[in-house]
Amino acid sequence: MTSLYSTRLSDLRKKMKDSNTDLVAVGPTSHLMWLTGLNPHGDERPVMLLVTPKHAEFLMPALNADSNRQHTDLPFTTWTDAQGPHGALETILERLSLPSSPHVALDEMMRSDFSFLLLSKLSDPTHSFMQETIGALRKVKDTSEYTALKETHRINDIALTRAFDGLQEGMTEQDVADGIAATYAEHDAQIEFINVAFGANGAFAHHHTGQTQLTRDMAVQIDCGCRYMSYPADNTRCGWFGTPSEHYIEIFDIVEQAISAALAAAKPGATSGAVDAAARDIINAAGYGETFLARTGHGLGLDLHEKPDIVSGSDVVLQPGNVFSIEPGIYLLGQFGIRLEEIVILREDGPEILSSLSREMIVRG
Amino acid sequence: MTSLYSTRLSDLRKKMKDSNTDLVAVGPTSHLMWLTGLNPHGDERPVMLLVTPKHAEFLMPALNADSNRQHTDLPFTTWTDAQGPHGALETILERLSLPSSPHVALDEMMRSDFSFLLLSKLSDPTHSFMQETIGALRKVKDTSEYTALKETHRINDIALTRAFDGLQEGMTEQDVADGIAATYAEHDAQIEFINVAFGANGAFAHHHTGQTQLTRDMAVQIDCGCRYMSYPADNTRCGWFGTPSEHYIEIFDIVEQAISAALAAAKPGATSGAVDAAARDIINAAGYGETFLARTGHGLGLDLHEKPDIVSGSDVVLQPGNVFSIEPGIYLLGQFGIRLEEIVILREDGPEILSSLSREMIVRG
Repeated sequence: MTSLYSTRLSDLRKKMKDSNTDLVAVGPTSHLMWLTGLNPHGDERPVMLLVTPKHAEFLMPALNADSNRQHTDLPFTTWTDAQGPHGALETILERLSLPSSPHVALDEMMRSDFSFLLLSKLSDPTHSFMQETIGALRKVKDTSEYTALKETHRINDIALTRAFDGLQEGMTEQDVADGIAATYAEHDAQIEFINVAFGANGAFAHHHTGQTQLTRDMAVQIDCGCRYMSYPADNTRCGWFGTPSEHYIEIFDIVEQAISAALAAAKPGATSGAVDAAARDIINAAGYGETFLARTGHGLGLDLHEKPDIVSGSDVVLQPGNVFSIEPGIYLLGQFGIRLEEIVILREDGPEILSSLSREMIVRG
Repeated sequence: MTSLYSTRLSDLRKKMKDSNTDLVAVGPTSHLMWLTGLNPHGDERPVMLLVTPKHAEFLMPALNADSNRQHTDLPFTTWTDAQGPHGALETILERLSLPSSPHVALDEMMRSDFSFLLLSKLSDPTHSFMQETIGALRKVKDTSEYTALKETHRINDIALTRAFDGLQEGMTEQDVADGIAATYAEHDAQIEFINVAFGANGAFAHHHTGQTQLTRDMAVQIDCGCRYMSYPADNTRCGWFGTPSEHYIEIFDIVEQAISAALAAAKPGATSGAVDAAARDIINAAGYGETFLARTGHGLGLDLHEKPDIVSGSDVVLQPGNVFSIEPGIYLLGQFGIRLEEIVILREDGPEILSSLSREMIVRG
């Protein structure tokens, strides 16, 4: 195990002690990747890492054991398709000597059948998810994670810039997305997601890029992110092809005020709810509160969406090292949507924005 | 709702009655796609379709409601990020008037936290997964599914043929994979998975395509599948670059005998275990049983792996319309691995192979 992963395992055990957790069960998800560097083939065959204060062992499908063995030196108990996972899981649990009524932290992202399989083998268990253990640790990014996040946002900036610069009448949303994908490929980055919305399509928060064509005097909204060094980027910029309408300029200005206010509110010690309110109050005051249904932001790390969320009413206190989005928007059905998004890492003195792109309205054509 | 999806919902309710299931909870997985055609944005926000004998309703994150509304006319109860899902879920459950101690069929692929959220709102529930309801229905493919599967295998055949024909000394596994991906793109198909293994890498059942270079007298194993019309292909072919060794020829012949035997055994009324045994007995008799850890096959449909598995000891009886792989292999660590794979649809008189590719050893270079 490299020192990074042995440090993380040791940090996890401190959190287990603090939260009276007897067993942590990690599925083939980003929690496992964060803890061990292992990104196992995820299918219907139960695979999980079981961690106690003294022991850590994988329940492992036999046919994946050799390839996974190249990435971790933690012990495996394997099972074949003919045997099924029950015997192997029971063997591991005997070895773990859990207390009676153990408290288990389950990987909330793991398939339901994996969780129920584990619970069915325990005597009178209680359970929670990872918020007090791996989840709590993942909320504070270390230097290696910052480096990866900074680099993936650098590539994403290039793709976004080229996408807006290349806009031409008649292009489809898919054409623009293809160009972004090509920029990612050129930089050996993977596609995490690409949403290109022309005109009224931008009013859907999760619009699927399609065959809508760009015409003059149309709003353009691009929300995209690549994945590089295992970490994702996420950024939204908005603009207009042609001459922006006064209405668009007015709404854009409100959204820019909202994101600026939230960035100013994001300090260590502030609550997530206060940062959300800083953006939401401005949109509410302008009369567009009912169009802004989403939270103001989401945490980002190995997962595009993780903790901490920036959400109305949340009393979660923000800490240095938290990485999250701030992305208020106003969505006008049948007209357009404007969302401006930054990913920040919280420093002692406030947010450091990972992207280097200007947030000004982008006017092309 | 189109007639396809209303038929499926009505078929599901028959299965619910037969299995005394009061509630079916479908997550944002292939089960939902099969049942409704809807493939919702899957993130940490709970989304599920709740089906009773008389009612069907979605728990739906508000910000995805508009875009999902374009794809289904089933009712939504929405929740915003600020509200969280609890109230909306309770509202739906009140409307459903479930009996006391309801029996719930949970989507086994759904995130664990979604399942526990639902169960926490029910009074003394019992649960199972989808094997008696949606899972049972999905095992028997209809004509529209056969058409899609046949077409995606046609494209996959082209990609596999070109990949073997294009082998050249010095190419990396990744180069070959890139070529396969390009063929998929040319046919508007997506990449489902591409595993290219040179030499000893083929001995890992789930090898990750890498930077190993092709040299003369090296085994080549390609297992790949595209996705087209929403359905995946899956096929493995093996061969040799240069002049195959006698040992390779001998092992290849055993694997071919094994797959032929399993294809001959695959008839309606046969058990899954009997088909597995037909292949496994040949590999065991040749003395290589300990290298063949995997099941002989897996079902395939909207998911690359679904039911029925073709696995040792299984008494599941095969039916016309089942689609599954037959893919015995012999894996010699440090040397090479040979797996031959077909996807078949079971007809009254036996298996129809979806690929049109010969299974003969492919010798190139």
